Amino acid sequence: MTIVHDLALQARQAAIVLAGTPTAAKNAALHAIADDLLGATTRIVAANATDVEVARGAGTGEHVIDRLLLDADRVSAFAEGVRDIAALPDPVGEVVRGSILANGLRMEQIRVPMGVIGMIYEGRPNVTADAAAICLKAGSAVLLRGSSSAAASNRTIVEVMRAALVRSGLPEDAIIGVPADDRSTATDLMRARGLVDLVIPRGGAGLIRAVVEESTVPVIETGTGNCHVYVDADADLDMALSIVLNAKTHRTSVCNAAESLLVHRDVAEVFVPRVVTALQEAGVTIHGDATFCATDQAVVPATDDDYATEYLDLDISAAVVDTLPAAIAHIRRFSSGHTEAIVTRSIDTARRFTTGVDSAAVMINASTRFTDGAEFGFGAEIGISTQKLHARGPMGLTEMTTTTYVVTGDGHIR
Amino acid sequence: MTIVHDLALQARQAAIVLAGTPTAAKNAALHAIADDLLGATTRIVAANATDVEVARGAGTGEHVIDRLLLDADRVSAFAEGVRDIAALPDPVGEVVRGSILANGLRMEQIRVPMGVIGMIYEGRPNVTADAAAICLKAGSAVLLRGSSSAAASNRTIVEVMRAALVRSGLPEDAIIGVPADDRSTATDLMRARGLVDLVIPRGGAGLIRAVVEESTVPVIETGTGNCHVYVDADADLDMALSIVLNAKTHRTSVCNAAESLLVHRDVAEVFVPRVVTALQEAGVTIHGDATFCATDQAVVPATDDDYATEYLDLDISAAVVDTLPAAIAHIRRFSSGHTEAIVTRSIDTARRFTTGVDSAAVMINASTRFTDGAEFGFGAEIGISTQKLHARGPMGLTEMTTTTYVVTGDGHIR
Repeated sequence: MTIVHDLALQARQAAIVLAGTPTAAKNAALHAIADDLLGATTRIVAANATDVEVARGAGTGEHVIDRLLLDADRVSAFAEGVRDIAALPDPVGEVVRGSILANGLRMEQIRVPMGVIGMIYEGRPNVTADAAAICLKAGSAVLLRGSSSAAASNRTIVEVMRAALVRSGLPEDAIIGVPADDRSTATDLMRARGLVDLVIPRGGAGLIRAVVEESTVPVIETGTGNCHVYVDADADLDMALSIVLNAKTHRTSVCNAAESLLVHRDVAEVFVPRVVTALQEAGVTIHGDATFCATDQAVVPATDDDYATEYLDLDISAAVVDTLPAAIAHIRRFSSGHTEAIVTRSIDTARRFTTGVDSAAVMINASTRFTDGAEFGFGAEIGISTQKLHARGPMGLTEMTTTTYVVTGDGHIR
Repeated sequence: MTIVHDLALQARQAAIVLAGTPTAAKNAALHAIADDLLGATTRIVAANATDVEVARGAGTGEHVIDRLLLDADRVSAFAEGVRDIAALPDPVGEVVRGSILANGLRMEQIRVPMGVIGMIYEGRPNVTADAAAICLKAGSAVLLRGSSSAAASNRTIVEVMRAALVRSGLPEDAIIGVPADDRSTATDLMRARGLVDLVIPRGGAGLIRAVVEESTVPVIETGTGNCHVYVDADADLDMALSIVLNAKTHRTSVCNAAESLLVHRDVAEVFVPRVVTALQEAGVTIHGDATFCATDQAVVPATDDDYATEYLDLDISAAVVDTLPAAIAHIRRFSSGHTEAIVTRSIDTARRFTTGVDSAAVMINASTRFTDGAEFGFGAEIGISTQKLHARGPMGLTEMTTTTYVVTGDGHIR
């Protein structure tokens, strides 16, 4: 038996208790966690400093360091995030559907906790607090397997949260840190079928692919976003320019940033020079097709690899398409199924685009950046699902639950 | 590239067309399929006769032969089942939730087809028609990988259905039979991630385990049912007797049949002798604990293996438990998470049992046999999920869909 197996057994016991814990008790524990995280700011920041020192010593790039780094403001931000989750409605107990069957049986489908959720994630130590709070509110125990680069930060945050659970009269094993010193602990977590009900990977494409390949526990794939903006023949070109710039440059390192631009041939002559200039002024490198390359020398010729790439940086691939179906076919071929935007005045074109692409979200005349749990009003987000099973798009508390059918009779037999 | 890869690509093309096909056209195709299946009864029964002959020649047991066998009545039954599916509401296009966000964006979560669904199944050739009809109505293309023992039956049924699709103006590749002559075609289907959106195994525990282990495509586990009946201290014992008998003997080969009986110690002295006699009179072999064994010589001593077994036959495991928590702990340990029944007059006990067990369905004062898509009024059932992700319990048309967020703005940027 591995250490992960033992930890998962402990989490299962805690999950049984959590499933019967009333909302008020879960909320009180969340406030205790928020209080204690704030109170432990100095300790958390000090632990984080050792992680950052090790990372710097290993020559880690500054933008990875920035994701890892915690200061008092960032600790305060995730502690307040925990309080926000306490304020959200409890999904557990919701009657999803119910009816009296013809034979008099009362049938109700009721939302219940998932049980034990495994998180496997990279980089940001704030995920440790966010994920723990979301799982706790949704009535599930969580196994947190973060990155070894954030080991000291994560360990400290988990210690603080577990102590707060004890202080609140809830089982400390509702939140368990999984050691990150060996890759095998991640693999063991993915293979703990029967003990762990769901694994959610958060991180780069490589991590997600590995989890999908190796896991026997059901997985929800998150995050990879090769998002497109399609500028239709019927587009308002000023609006299109504004949306392309926002989707590409507002924040480049996030999964709902645009990575690829498609322009209908009918507006290419007018729009391509404008968008090339505007993107270049914003510091964006364009990887374009022949039309884009002909517009400006600085445009780099695009390959199929470019069209398939999630740059997460000031780069964009770009092409002119002859028709709406050609745009849809391009997106179906290269998209990761996250978010596609269309800029058009035509109801019919918007409808055909929406039906034609096969992605978690479609933005009509809006930036791809709006695919986000907070923007959608979910209050909390544990990731954005790019698969079709169980949850698709931003996942909040509801998506961390399952349901049970409760059927009540008075001696009914068949 | 394997044959399954090519077939999956064809299915994806058909799925794109299906996603934009109106309900009326899908329903017309379903009626055409029903008509043509009825019209081809002689041909289907003849093909089936060759499968049955091969199976008999291989010494296959009569109860497996019975599942395989098709006669005119059975063909008529599944053809009429296709018509019933045409009559059900179309899940595609349902607005699951929607609101105007604070910034004026209109956000709607809309039900859309899954895409391409792979079915891997054993035994009954009627699954070929049932699954194809459900997937078609839900707007998805289906890859049908049945048992090699039913190869001729399945091939003929698929041919008839594909011809009906062509006659109806829909792509014949919406329904594709996957050759069953080699195990590798099943493996290829499970590994066709990116081409196939969902795999559903239907069959014995071995098949389901293999699919879960090997699949990189998301899987919904179905069917294994180690279902319990718990007779509480507060039970109406006449009701309890009737429910135990019905749950065990009404139909033994199905996943919602009871396989295990738990009796509270307070009523054991009265109830155990009664239930032992009644079960034995119904031809049931009891695998019991010490109390049960002491009641009657014919009771076989039960092992942990018995408590873990889905007999699917006239056998039942049985034990006396000291408390409600002991009953819940036993069920958590041995159940497959399908259906548990409790017989009790106590609201509080029913509530604690419902929260305590961790199964797809809980029956309060009703037989386990009611966990069924038809009984629940779903009209069609593609299987009963025993996992927590996406769908839990009987799965109908709705469970064969996913959703997309469609967000409409007028140039919104962040």
